[in-house]
Amino acid sequence: MILLNLDRTNKVPLFHQVFAQLKLLIEANTLKPGFRMPPTRELAKNHGVNRSTVYKAYEELTALGYLESRPGSYSTVRKRHKIATEDQRAKKGLIPWAKNSSEEGRTLHNAFERFKSRLPENINPSNLVNLASLELDTRNFPVEAFRRCINTVMVEKGGQLLTYGDCAGYKPLREYIAQRLRFHGISVNYDEILITNGSQNAIELVLKLLTVPNKNIAVEMPTYSNVIPLLNYFKANIVGIPMNETGMDLDHLEKVLQNQDVSFIYTMPNFHNPTGITTDQTHREKLLGLCETYRVPLVEDAFEEEMKYFGKVPLPIKSMDRLHMVIYLGTFSKVLFPGIRIGWVAAEKEFIERVTAIKKFSDLSTNSLIQAALHEFCEQGYYTLHIKRMHREYRKRMNTVIGMLREKLSRFQHVSWTEPAGGYLLWLQLRNTGKNEKQLTDLFYHYGLILIPGSHFFPPRPEQAQTHQFRLSISTCSEPEIREGITRLANALSDIYCEKGENHAA
Amino acid sequence: MILLNLDRTNKVPLFHQVFAQLKLLIEANTLKPGFRMPPTRELAKNHGVNRSTVYKAYEELTALGYLESRPGSYSTVRKRHKIATEDQRAKKGLIPWAKNSSEEGRTLHNAFERFKSRLPENINPSNLVNLASLELDTRNFPVEAFRRCINTVMVEKGGQLLTYGDCAGYKPLREYIAQRLRFHGISVNYDEILITNGSQNAIELVLKLLTVPNKNIAVEMPTYSNVIPLLNYFKANIVGIPMNETGMDLDHLEKVLQNQDVSFIYTMPNFHNPTGITTDQTHREKLLGLCETYRVPLVEDAFEEEMKYFGKVPLPIKSMDRLHMVIYLGTFSKVLFPGIRIGWVAAEKEFIERVTAIKKFSDLSTNSLIQAALHEFCEQGYYTLHIKRMHREYRKRMNTVIGMLREKLSRFQHVSWTEPAGGYLLWLQLRNTGKNEKQLTDLFYHYGLILIPGSHFFPPRPEQAQTHQFRLSISTCSEPEIREGITRLANALSDIYCEKGENHAA
Repeated sequence: MILLNLDRTNKVPLFHQVFAQLKLLIEANTLKPGFRMPPTRELAKNHGVNRSTVYKAYEELTALGYLESRPGSYSTVRKRHKIATEDQRAKKGLIPWAKNSSEEGRTLHNAFERFKSRLPENINPSNLVNLASLELDTRNFPVEAFRRCINTVMVEKGGQLLTYGDCAGYKPLREYIAQRLRFHGISVNYDEILITNGSQNAIELVLKLLTVPNKNIAVEMPTYSNVIPLLNYFKANIVGIPMNETGMDLDHLEKVLQNQDVSFIYTMPNFHNPTGITTDQTHREKLLGLCETYRVPLVEDAFEEEMKYFGKVPLPIKSMDRLHMVIYLGTFSKVLFPGIRIGWVAAEKEFIERVTAIKKFSDLSTNSLIQAALHEFCEQGYYTLHIKRMHREYRKRMNTVIGMLREKLSRFQHVSWTEPAGGYLLWLQLRNTGKNEKQLTDLFYHYGLILIPGSHFFPPRPEQAQTHQFRLSISTCSEPEIREGITRLANALSDIYCEKGENHAA
Repeated sequence: MILLNLDRTNKVPLFHQVFAQLKLLIEANTLKPGFRMPPTRELAKNHGVNRSTVYKAYEELTALGYLESRPGSYSTVRKRHKIATEDQRAKKGLIPWAKNSSEEGRTLHNAFERFKSRLPENINPSNLVNLASLELDTRNFPVEAFRRCINTVMVEKGGQLLTYGDCAGYKPLREYIAQRLRFHGISVNYDEILITNGSQNAIELVLKLLTVPNKNIAVEMPTYSNVIPLLNYFKANIVGIPMNETGMDLDHLEKVLQNQDVSFIYTMPNFHNPTGITTDQTHREKLLGLCETYRVPLVEDAFEEEMKYFGKVPLPIKSMDRLHMVIYLGTFSKVLFPGIRIGWVAAEKEFIERVTAIKKFSDLSTNSLIQAALHEFCEQGYYTLHIKRMHREYRKRMNTVIGMLREKLSRFQHVSWTEPAGGYLLWLQLRNTGKNEKQLTDLFYHYGLILIPGSHFFPPRPEQAQTHQFRLSISTCSEPEIREGITRLANALSDIYCEKGENHAA
């Protein structure tokens, strides 16, 4: 018979006292492996406790491997193997993970670490103006409307949204996107659309399908920072096409296409990241023409298609795409919620089928519940309403930042910037600073300002000479914050150029 | 002056009439590129309509590229490029996607097509017993509790859950998982956990980190069907370790380890997919010992860790892992909701950091809202409650299927099956059927039954001789459905073995 010492005045619940004392008896080998435990009813009766108290303790002992039991039979003490407790775990394991990583795994890890090292450490947000982040401003989020939409779809079809969904995406959402794309002049059906975990995932899936090691991929230079490490991961040969004021240099591109095989061209025609440049209609027609002539697919990353708040941006290249050259990437991240993780690929049906197969083996399917809630949000008209609000808001913000730059920075002859036709991004160019990029970043930080240094948007390369560039984003900053940020920027620049004795013309 | 013909009795909204008629005038070149449009106020006044009606029409024309405007100025007709309308799009595009795919892309596409071709087409679910699917039974879903949890987190912290989250996962959920793993004897901290888009995504990320082309990866044979195409995608050399009744053949494994370099070993110690086999404590200790001796990481796929409803399954291998050999994969898909797409990797911190970098470039982060709702669900105690219910339910279902198999199939001397210690899966072996796998699958279908043919769980290979195997899943079937399914199975088997004149012994 087992005798326990239960203390009813103790705060520790009775079941846990039973559990702990039995555990001790087993660990001390007082109760040996194979020992037949008393039935819960008996132990409970002997100690004047509820049977469920003992049951709960037995259950826990079973789960932790101290007892074994089969339904309808006695529990017995089992020979327990050594559990590696916290203090028994080695500080450093046997496997040298860096060495055991694939080369590609190391590539991404290095990129991850390098990105982190480019920004000042210990960023203290309270006192800083953050013109670095391309997050969205949470103050504009239509949280309440979205909450109601999730609630509605959970009530109306909760269960079916929680099973594995269609690997290509929730059909009504694909249909909505197809319909919405018609508004931008693009004519596609739902089966020409694959839903992805945001735009980054779309890029990755497209790369998985089209990249062959050591083959060329043409990208604007500079380009979206997160695409460069991926291209390296897939061992693509990056062919950088320089950007000029009107977009990627098409003469340069044509020479490349004349002389080399290119798997595809990656472009951001609207509000290019990081430069903020938007290409015009002629540029778009010419680029598509080159793709058709040389039979090279075009990946059109339209991450801010909806942010044409000045209303004078041409339609997407995809809208002219008769011959299915264009793989169009869209996302809800840059206009609604980044955290929703819903983007899409629109392309020829056969392409979509092939990229869907890849998606299936990556993660089976995207969360249907979120897709259904988003579809409800769109169908209820909240999405177009939200876009209108965003247009009003960012038209003001962009006018503010451009006005401030003209007011505060015109006096610096070595400073220039782009003035975008929409979106969130501007590109600042500094000449003759006498400092390197890291020193400039630190100086801005010293003035309470974060910008992203330009080298972030190029493949790793030797220190750039002369010109220093920074990306400036207005996506998270209100108008007063923008005014304060540009004032600080002007002060920092005064510091640089006065120090050098090369002050403004005025 | 522009004259429009507006019909107020028509159901078409006025703004759309304005839009459509202006569009016609532009397309007919009556209004030529560069034409300065009348101000909205003027056009509205001339036609006795609200100014906002005209404004809306202008806005739509601008978006579709018919007009261009800048704020505070006139709109003008723009030279519009050719939009590719539905009927102008080529039936077949210029790019031959199959040829332009990477070899790896073709691998996955072929696997996708092959899987589809293995099951009968046009499955009509109303009349079928589906013992194929490893979905969960939606009738058991705690939808209402989950709905309340989403609602709670949306109300309490909606905005911050809709920004980009921590790439490694929502910290409180990682903490909960760490705590829950302690219940299974595993001692890890939250920073040794990466949240993934389900278990499939976890496998993919681990493969991305550890796979080197042409190096060996040891997997149980048969194994999880979706892992084989991925291994092919990564060009790993698959070393199949045969399964016997106690799990993977460790003598065979040891010979492999003695003679070859192996990047890692992939195993499912509980309720193995597809065989349903669970390894015992000795097997687990020996397997971990081999990994330590030969310094080979072990990927422990614990997809059904929580479904130990018979209560006699040993603790995970990870629980004994002092030297950080084990990369443990867990998921909520196989016990709560498959569609939630939340799984995790638990491993040494450095490994987690490296695999997190890969995750970042794949999709930036996993949806925080769903992670927070899941965390709330767990914290409120709904998760453990749900597991208890699932245990009760599937203990009954598994007892039913085993009882039925014994009752109905014992008389067939050439038929055997596994009797699992938990989970959802059984493995049926047929000998001397005189039919090939496809014929057997079709025959079962003819009897109103779907099972997954065994070749699904092996790499593509020549027709297996003799033995035919099928996976039988009870995850979506109620007890009456299971009884009906096994009765149909017995009828089909009677058909096979009577036809061959090799009837039962009885």
